[in-house]
Amino acid sequence: MSRATIADVARAAGVSVPTVSKVLNGRPQISTATRRRVEEAVEQVGYARPGRPRRRAGLVDLVLGAVDSPWAQEVVAGAEAEAHDAGVGLVVTASRGPEAEWLGAALRRRSDGVVLAVTDLTTATVDALLGTGVPVVLLDRTGRSDPRLPSVGAANWSGALAATEHLLGLGHTRIATIVGPDHLACSAERVDGYLAALRRAGIPADDDLVVQGDFRSDGGRRAAAALLDLAAPPTAVFAGSDLQAFGVLSEARDRGLRLPEDLSVVGFDDLSVARFVTPALTTVRQPHADMAAQAVRIALGRQPAPESGRLELTTQLVLRASTTTTTD
Amino acid sequence: MSRATIADVARAAGVSVPTVSKVLNGRPQISTATRRRVEEAVEQVGYARPGRPRRRAGLVDLVLGAVDSPWAQEVVAGAEAEAHDAGVGLVVTASRGPEAEWLGAALRRRSDGVVLAVTDLTTATVDALLGTGVPVVLLDRTGRSDPRLPSVGAANWSGALAATEHLLGLGHTRIATIVGPDHLACSAERVDGYLAALRRAGIPADDDLVVQGDFRSDGGRRAAAALLDLAAPPTAVFAGSDLQAFGVLSEARDRGLRLPEDLSVVGFDDLSVARFVTPALTTVRQPHADMAAQAVRIALGRQPAPESGRLELTTQLVLRASTTTTTD
Repeated sequence: MSRATIADVARAAGVSVPTVSKVLNGRPQISTATRRRVEEAVEQVGYARPGRPRRRAGLVDLVLGAVDSPWAQEVVAGAEAEAHDAGVGLVVTASRGPEAEWLGAALRRRSDGVVLAVTDLTTATVDALLGTGVPVVLLDRTGRSDPRLPSVGAANWSGALAATEHLLGLGHTRIATIVGPDHLACSAERVDGYLAALRRAGIPADDDLVVQGDFRSDGGRRAAAALLDLAAPPTAVFAGSDLQAFGVLSEARDRGLRLPEDLSVVGFDDLSVARFVTPALTTVRQPHADMAAQAVRIALGRQPAPESGRLELTTQLVLRASTTTTTD
Repeated sequence: MSRATIADVARAAGVSVPTVSKVLNGRPQISTATRRRVEEAVEQVGYARPGRPRRRAGLVDLVLGAVDSPWAQEVVAGAEAEAHDAGVGLVVTASRGPEAEWLGAALRRRSDGVVLAVTDLTTATVDALLGTGVPVVLLDRTGRSDPRLPSVGAANWSGALAATEHLLGLGHTRIATIVGPDHLACSAERVDGYLAALRRAGIPADDDLVVQGDFRSDGGRRAAAALLDLAAPPTAVFAGSDLQAFGVLSEARDRGLRLPEDLSVVGFDDLSVARFVTPALTTVRQPHADMAAQAVRIALGRQPAPESGRLELTTQLVLRASTTTTTD
């Protein structure tokens, strides 16, 4: 535990880890005084610049935006299985916001790799990570990848296309969609898939039927309320996530709608709980556990990073009881 | 990483970790030849016997029977929050059966503490753990604690009493219960709470209404089928877990029963998904995240171990839509 880390350098220099990283990477936006202070601290703590062979810690870090969610459960399970295969321990950390306080701890541990499943990764954090030489992979459920880091994601566009085409095939023409947070690439990809399906079916898009939400059930409920208050409400909703879809089902039921006769609902995720709701949820399955396992595999160097920088796993439409032909 | 562990000794001696532990603890049931081989290996690898101050790894191990469950999700979240507070990393591992292959890895990491949330802990594993000097705490959701290890659990008996009294208060007299695996202390404690409530209400226990199950939804479904096939089926079921209760709801719905009018159902756990099923589940809330946090706190020495060896957190009945007055 004696080898100094970039965090030790930062502490000795009295600056942040991203600042140290910028100095080490020769970035211009650093004052000469700070640069000198950092370089003295590098000498002082005996920090060895990356690029040399590292001692293996026998650990891989998984950093999640939130640990207490059905989605996190599946990601942790997939990552743990792969870490076990690789003979390393899986350290699970919640990111607790964009400040990346987890970064110092992960660096002190000198993990063999880091998998980041966070949506609020700042450029400064990526800079700091790149400066450490620790392999980092984004588990990019929600998009906005930093192109400098390899990422593993799901095929959002084709999943949304399949979900919308399923509803079109059941005779629905007033199909709404609930969009995730608009800064996320996955939200845009899913809306594009939805719009592509309508376009192919010759149905003009209706702005009223595209509602903003978040990925949680309360957001789904509010979005459903707005949609069901329309003069011409939809007969089907493609929700951006399963939790959102659960909120739609709750709101529709509270309004006395019959499900799925009066409203068909499709989710996105296929969380393990999707089959327990009533009606059991038709949804687009994202292979979360497999995505996490592949991200760990790449981070540990057991599988090459994709040449394109991004690995996309296919999604699959799972038909259950929450969709049916329209009665309109 | 140079300090030898008990696993290194075992490897050098060609014996198992529990065997090394037995030798180090002076247990009698070891042959002289094995004892000599182990003692030579201790010298050879330079293993320092426990009791001396340990170097801090900055890690706490959480070992779970299964990682991919809604229950594990809440435990990991609670443990992670506490590990974060303590400034250590949380290593999450699935136990993969009673062979305790996780043990070697956990020891090599020289964790600051280990929290075990497994139901199949063998005496040999406990022996090995005790031999290492690493603080170990059982997160004892399901009972059968080893009395030599401190444990954190829930008040199963009083939770079952409250659930059954709730059903009695709604006028039910034919109340069934589905029992968990019978080797688990929590199963016995919950049945005792159920029987105590009936006894206090002057209702004789009926063996037909106490059905064996496991804690999963399929087991709940099978148990419900057996109960609903009775000549005089119950009007209410107290299930041993939420997943079991989900299975009961599915089976009852498939048989055309109205819920909760024809069958009231109470679960045990209050998983975050309990409010998404239909009807939303009345259940006994176990504070899983808090239980996990306290176990981590004790393992890290941030809170003294309970003098009695066991810390029991109270459960709480959460009323939702799956219970109502009986129409019989």
